[in-house]
Amino acid sequence: MNTNKRKIVNDPVYGFISINNDLIFDLIEHPWVQRLRRIRQLGLTNLVYPGAMHTRFQHVLGAYFLMNQAIEVIRSKGHEITDEEAEAVNIAILLHDIGHGPFSHALEFGIIEGFTHESISELLMAGLNAQFNNRLTLAIAIFQDKYHKRFLHQLVSGQLDMDRLDYLRRDSFFTGVSEGVVGSDRIIKMLNVVDDKLVVEAKGIYSIEKFLIARRLMYWQVYLHKTVLSAENLLINILKRAKELSLQGDKLFAPPALEYFLFKKFDRSFINAADEKDLNTMLQHFVRLDDTDIISATKVWMEHDDKILSTLCQKMISRQLYKIELQNQPFSAERIAEMIEKTEKHFSLSSKEASFMVFADSITSNIYETGEHNIGILYNNGKVVDIAEASDMLNMQVLTKVVTKHFLCYPKEIISKI
Amino acid sequence: MNTNKRKIVNDPVYGFISINNDLIFDLIEHPWVQRLRRIRQLGLTNLVYPGAMHTRFQHVLGAYFLMNQAIEVIRSKGHEITDEEAEAVNIAILLHDIGHGPFSHALEFGIIEGFTHESISELLMAGLNAQFNNRLTLAIAIFQDKYHKRFLHQLVSGQLDMDRLDYLRRDSFFTGVSEGVVGSDRIIKMLNVVDDKLVVEAKGIYSIEKFLIARRLMYWQVYLHKTVLSAENLLINILKRAKELSLQGDKLFAPPALEYFLFKKFDRSFINAADEKDLNTMLQHFVRLDDTDIISATKVWMEHDDKILSTLCQKMISRQLYKIELQNQPFSAERIAEMIEKTEKHFSLSSKEASFMVFADSITSNIYETGEHNIGILYNNGKVVDIAEASDMLNMQVLTKVVTKHFLCYPKEIISKI
Amino acid sequence: MNTNKRKIVNDPVYGFISINNDLIFDLIEHPWVQRLRRIRQLGLTNLVYPGAMHTRFQHVLGAYFLMNQAIEVIRSKGHEITDEEAEAVNIAILLHDIGHGPFSHALEFGIIEGFTHESISELLMAGLNAQFNNRLTLAIAIFQDKYHKRFLHQLVSGQLDMDRLDYLRRDSFFTGVSEGVVGSDRIIKMLNVVDDKLVVEAKGIYSIEKFLIARRLMYWQVYLHKTVLSAENLLINILKRAKELSLQGDKLFAPPALEYFLFKKFDRSFINAADEKDLNTMLQHFVRLDDTDIISATKVWMEHDDKILSTLCQKMISRQLYKIELQNQPFSAERIAEMIEKTEKHFSLSSKEASFMVFADSITSNIYETGEHNIGILYNNGKVVDIAEASDMLNMQVLTKVVTKHFLCYPKEIISKI
Amino acid sequence: MNTNKRKIVNDPVYGFISINNDLIFDLIEHPWVQRLRRIRQLGLTNLVYPGAMHTRFQHVLGAYFLMNQAIEVIRSKGHEITDEEAEAVNIAILLHDIGHGPFSHALEFGIIEGFTHESISELLMAGLNAQFNNRLTLAIAIFQDKYHKRFLHQLVSGQLDMDRLDYLRRDSFFTGVSEGVVGSDRIIKMLNVVDDKLVVEAKGIYSIEKFLIARRLMYWQVYLHKTVLSAENLLINILKRAKELSLQGDKLFAPPALEYFLFKKFDRSFINAADEKDLNTMLQHFVRLDDTDIISATKVWMEHDDKILSTLCQKMISRQLYKIELQNQPFSAERIAEMIEKTEKHFSLSSKEASFMVFADSITSNIYETGEHNIGILYNNGKVVDIAEASDMLNMQVLTKVVTKHFLCYPKEIISKI
Repeated sequence: MNTNKRKIVNDPVYGFISINNDLIFDLIEHPWVQRLRRIRQLGLTNLVYPGAMHTRFQHVLGAYFLMNQAIEVIRSKGHEITDEEAEAVNIAILLHDIGHGPFSHALEFGIIEGFTHESISELLMAGLNAQFNNRLTLAIAIFQDKYHKRFLHQLVSGQLDMDRLDYLRRDSFFTGVSEGVVGSDRIIKMLNVVDDKLVVEAKGIYSIEKFLIARRLMYWQVYLHKTVLSAENLLINILKRAKELSLQGDKLFAPPALEYFLFKKFDRSFINAADEKDLNTMLQHFVRLDDTDIISATKVWMEHDDKILSTLCQKMISRQLYKIELQNQPFSAERIAEMIEKTEKHFSLSSKEASFMVFADSITSNIYETGEHNIGILYNNGKVVDIAEASDMLNMQVLTKVVTKHFLCYPKEIISKI
Repeated sequence: MNTNKRKIVNDPVYGFISINNDLIFDLIEHPWVQRLRRIRQLGLTNLVYPGAMHTRFQHVLGAYFLMNQAIEVIRSKGHEITDEEAEAVNIAILLHDIGHGPFSHALEFGIIEGFTHESISELLMAGLNAQFNNRLTLAIAIFQDKYHKRFLHQLVSGQLDMDRLDYLRRDSFFTGVSEGVVGSDRIIKMLNVVDDKLVVEAKGIYSIEKFLIARRLMYWQVYLHKTVLSAENLLINILKRAKELSLQGDKLFAPPALEYFLFKKFDRSFINAADEKDLNTMLQHFVRLDDTDIISATKVWMEHDDKILSTLCQKMISRQLYKIELQNQPFSAERIAEMIEKTEKHFSLSSKEASFMVFADSITSNIYETGEHNIGILYNNGKVVDIAEASDMLNMQVLTKVVTKHFLCYPKEIISKI
Repeated sequence: MNTNKRKIVNDPVYGFISINNDLIFDLIEHPWVQRLRRIRQLGLTNLVYPGAMHTRFQHVLGAYFLMNQAIEVIRSKGHEITDEEAEAVNIAILLHDIGHGPFSHALEFGIIEGFTHESISELLMAGLNAQFNNRLTLAIAIFQDKYHKRFLHQLVSGQLDMDRLDYLRRDSFFTGVSEGVVGSDRIIKMLNVVDDKLVVEAKGIYSIEKFLIARRLMYWQVYLHKTVLSAENLLINILKRAKELSLQGDKLFAPPALEYFLFKKFDRSFINAADEKDLNTMLQHFVRLDDTDIISATKVWMEHDDKILSTLCQKMISRQLYKIELQNQPFSAERIAEMIEKTEKHFSLSSKEASFMVFADSITSNIYETGEHNIGILYNNGKVVDIAEASDMLNMQVLTKVVTKHFLCYPKEIISKI
Repeated sequence: MNTNKRKIVNDPVYGFISINNDLIFDLIEHPWVQRLRRIRQLGLTNLVYPGAMHTRFQHVLGAYFLMNQAIEVIRSKGHEITDEEAEAVNIAILLHDIGHGPFSHALEFGIIEGFTHESISELLMAGLNAQFNNRLTLAIAIFQDKYHKRFLHQLVSGQLDMDRLDYLRRDSFFTGVSEGVVGSDRIIKMLNVVDDKLVVEAKGIYSIEKFLIARRLMYWQVYLHKTVLSAENLLINILKRAKELSLQGDKLFAPPALEYFLFKKFDRSFINAADEKDLNTMLQHFVRLDDTDIISATKVWMEHDDKILSTLCQKMISRQLYKIELQNQPFSAERIAEMIEKTEKHFSLSSKEASFMVFADSITSNIYETGEHNIGILYNNGKVVDIAEASDMLNMQVLTKVVTKHFLCYPKEIISKI
């Protein structure tokens, strides 16, 4: 082993993270992974929780650290994971977020409508595999759940994967919402494999209950915090408006990478028509784009002639976010119409323009991803029981239910008028 | 009190920070303070310690939190601090970093040669005072050490001020260098005032020793870490080169706020000649500038025609920093000349151009600010003794000595040639 | 105030605990409170979790610390708590555990059958009140829920009292079961009072859910841990056997305070017949008794002639505890009979004697105290909703249900025979 | 491997401690090691720092945990440690404190004058070796520094051994003196071996400085805290007086193990005359003795006829400790005489009796053990430099100097008379 490539990274969450593998070291040094240093894990959440400045780079290193622990535990219980498989599953977790752009959600809704970060991840992994002489082939197979040992995939993406274990703990650490802290140590120590499926040993059941409760708490207290939702929707509207103006020929200020995405449509028809060269061009620009471009441009657009764009940008930068209401039922058409009317009057806008200021929407599938398999609890007698049955405590119907919350955003200015 | 303005902020370091004062609430909401959300406390240090993404905004809130504790302790020991003074000293600590630009050090060396962040702080405080109907007058007097109760100034700026207590602890927290953690709780509990001077009660002496050792540790392990120094100097050279090209008329890509500073000289002669309007224009641009502009532009400049600029920017973004050597003596002229020659050959550069790639410099006054008064230790008999005498443990000569370290930076590429 | 009596106590959980009140200082110094330094909070739990050596003394100081925080929060929300009431509620929490003897549960089952720790607490509080010139009268009224501001009593004893908030956090801290950690800071910050009832503001609902889950986790992972149950029952049997022998006239080794309780029956008839002098004698001995007496005597009894007593004591000291089985249904008479028979044979015991070695019992009311009022959640519109309704997440039926677990204990030696 | 013997122990300091070795598991279960559960690491320190209830059992488990880390680090740097050696060095650290009795210092000064805990450790290790079929022979050789790889001994006993690394961190954790926390992780990561000597790599120098400062802080703030010294000396006098009375034929209450030591002289002449049987008898009683016997007896002696003994015991149990003065020079004969005279008068004592109440003594060799080798710092060029030279910061003269502090103890009652 080339010892020059051994490295110890300080991490506020776990202490020290050791990198002991040349290929992994080289991947971490690659500009496409380094780019994650400039993409915050929680987007605009720092507007509510100032500590939430941590990046996707820190997160993937942390998930890699946990993966090493999980491999050691599973091996110690008599299940084979070859060195090759260990390297591959480590690579898979290291690269699992590589397709995330800046403010992922906003970006996908605002300017690259046709692409999800998952699809871009796959394109970038394939690109890296080519650059690294196909040494990532096994990692990609595991990532795509095409490898026969399927529990390896579950370590990367499943109900108890290293991604979640790290992000819940890390997000809770940096936001300062200490109640979200997850006992990742204990959960990992309780992992086992039965019939090629990741399970948790029975005495870990309370830890799992607490993990699910902590996750729920983080959802409502952080990920779907009203003010965070408001800020994200503000950014979506900024990007939509900027793109609208760009497509109309307005030469907006923007760094070239952002400009590329603003001045081109990335809908289904682009994807269907795109040849390899088109995709490559897209990726070349994508890997140049990060949080700094969006924020820097937003500041410039505060002075733009378009009143909508400049108003939205001023609101973002001075943190004068939308007023937001949240409720279980959809907002009535009358209510929305009333708010729109007030906004049109207050800002002298057309109704088309006002739609950037007042809008109702809902968040649905974001809370708990559907279609996931429940967590299996392994009893001493060898039986595996679904957590939904094993736990008499949790209302699993609630946990697995798709929750829809409706929200209405409007400018603060119009309330004082009421 | 307008209770709508009471607020609790989550902070990973202290838990909860309460804001209970309208004026302070409004100052925190002011765009000039909000701007600090986009300026990292430790600049490029995250290239070595990935957790070091925390901002000056978090730091000033933390220092404000500690100030409230200190006020409570000092009052409990029988020293009067009126409510007005308490508000003022809180404002002073809240605003003490307001003049910091992005990557402060690099900025001051690279493009706004004539201004220190201290001088800009004073200009901005004056500006805020005008906007807030002179309600900051007492705060500014304390900040400038013009108020008769001088211990209040020492809480803002002195050997044991709330600034240092917070940043040592916070920087150590976020870098993960846990040994730098300072027992701010205990030190604050031991504060007292004698003859209008902040002192530490005798039983706090070991805490002070540990504070000084922790500070030293943070200097060598974080603030003056070789790789951080290398990155900072790389950025200085990027900004210098960009400014050089701009002044020659090259229309570099840059957001307007950065453009303003690139295309104008900010030396002594500007300051001497500047009228209020000039200064205002400068400040208007300054408060628009933050980390995102510098990073975003650096990425664009990777493609610039000027080979020096593009090479430096590529190195920064792909984290291929200078190789750096550190030593106690200056580097010999021969050694430097040799490295320059190698660099000229390797990159086919003129010697003027090579100076952006190879250079020797020293860091001197950065380690311990000179001219500071030592810390007084208050014994039970009422006597105050200098820490230098009170501690038989610390080699105070070492601590107070101005240390000069010489360093030599050059591109990694030229070594493999050797 | 007599500043000699101000004191700061270091606490590993909260940092510093300040004592700023003379009466409270004097109560803490009183031998009856100091005695709690020699009574572990979690009895024999340290046999499973070696860190669980913390004492009831630490716990009452911690609960006192939290009470001061709660008082400050409730006052800040506009509810009056006079200085006199604040002192009284602080005293009430400080003294709430004063009637606990060593290994409380074991003691009550083993040798002082007629007394609960609650009844002894009341006797001791009355005693202290006499010694302190009736300055504790208000504290006792609050403790007994006889004071008209009933929310003060709820702070001492209720679903979210400072007792629980401290012990969950402290027990979790010292056992190292970090998942039991409760966000006491946030819960206290969310406390409010409506209609003289303690409630939690709506945005604290997730913290309450997590508090309840953490509490359940601590129950199953710590308080009712199988091995802990086994050790407690072993100690109960040791004490029962020792008392049996003593009442038969066997002069067992014991320090006088323990001797007093071993050689006298403390059943209902004693209580009914007891005059003030009898009770005083009892209390004089009770306040001399602590963990050290029980453990020290147990070691001596390892050599006692009575085979049952010596065997049980040897098992305790060498940590060869009963084998224990836990299940939801009662154990069948046949199963128990079979184990008894085996034990009789293995150790050559009469069936009376074997009952100290093999026995079935159940734990019922220990998990969640019944008859408690649910926690009220205060919404922004002023409505208070029961947590059982407010939380769609928790299965409150499960939480409030009286759970009965049946257990069977027997000596390990007889299994190898099977 | 017998997997029944694998075990995970929760530890509040390190999280989880895994035991993966049968022999080590059996040693931990042995009654002589289990006894350490009943011996507090810091004796009477909990009278000042209530959290300091942790035991020597927790400490040896912790030191064992760190040893496993150190072995892994040293192996990873290319130095061979065979599995046999690893087991042996682990056993050595596990047993290094096995000869400690209750309140070690007090015991050695008070009743077993002829024995040090080191000498008893060696006797007990030999006894265990016999019980375990000589499987501890290598461990004992390492412990006694008779094994040719001497760095293994240094891991057990040296300037940076696992004993110190654990106890500094653990004592600081449980006392709540958070400033004593040592970065054991980083120090262990920096360990290396040069010429069969344990050294620290150069970039760990600041951690070493901090370790030494933290150690000094713990000495002055905890280990030699005035009140702790006072309590220890009170206990020494209690034990001395009890022994004096016992040797005069007074049948003091005591559990048999304590009785044995009270009624026999354990001076040099005993040791010289003792045959193996005598020593065995002594050890049999010694391993029965723990903190509970001393405290339980002290409580009984509060009622003893001997006024000196009962007064001292009452003072201990009610925490009315001696008043203590500390200074750098010896106390003058006049001062001492004056205090003795006052005490004689106040308590109507003979001068012989008064010597239990008033006495001057000094603490000398306790602070830093002399004769230890300094810590070697390993530079990148392979040179090893003494920390005394390598650190320009620490005043090593101070650190290594034998400090003598003189103290004078007397009853509080006599001051109010002055």
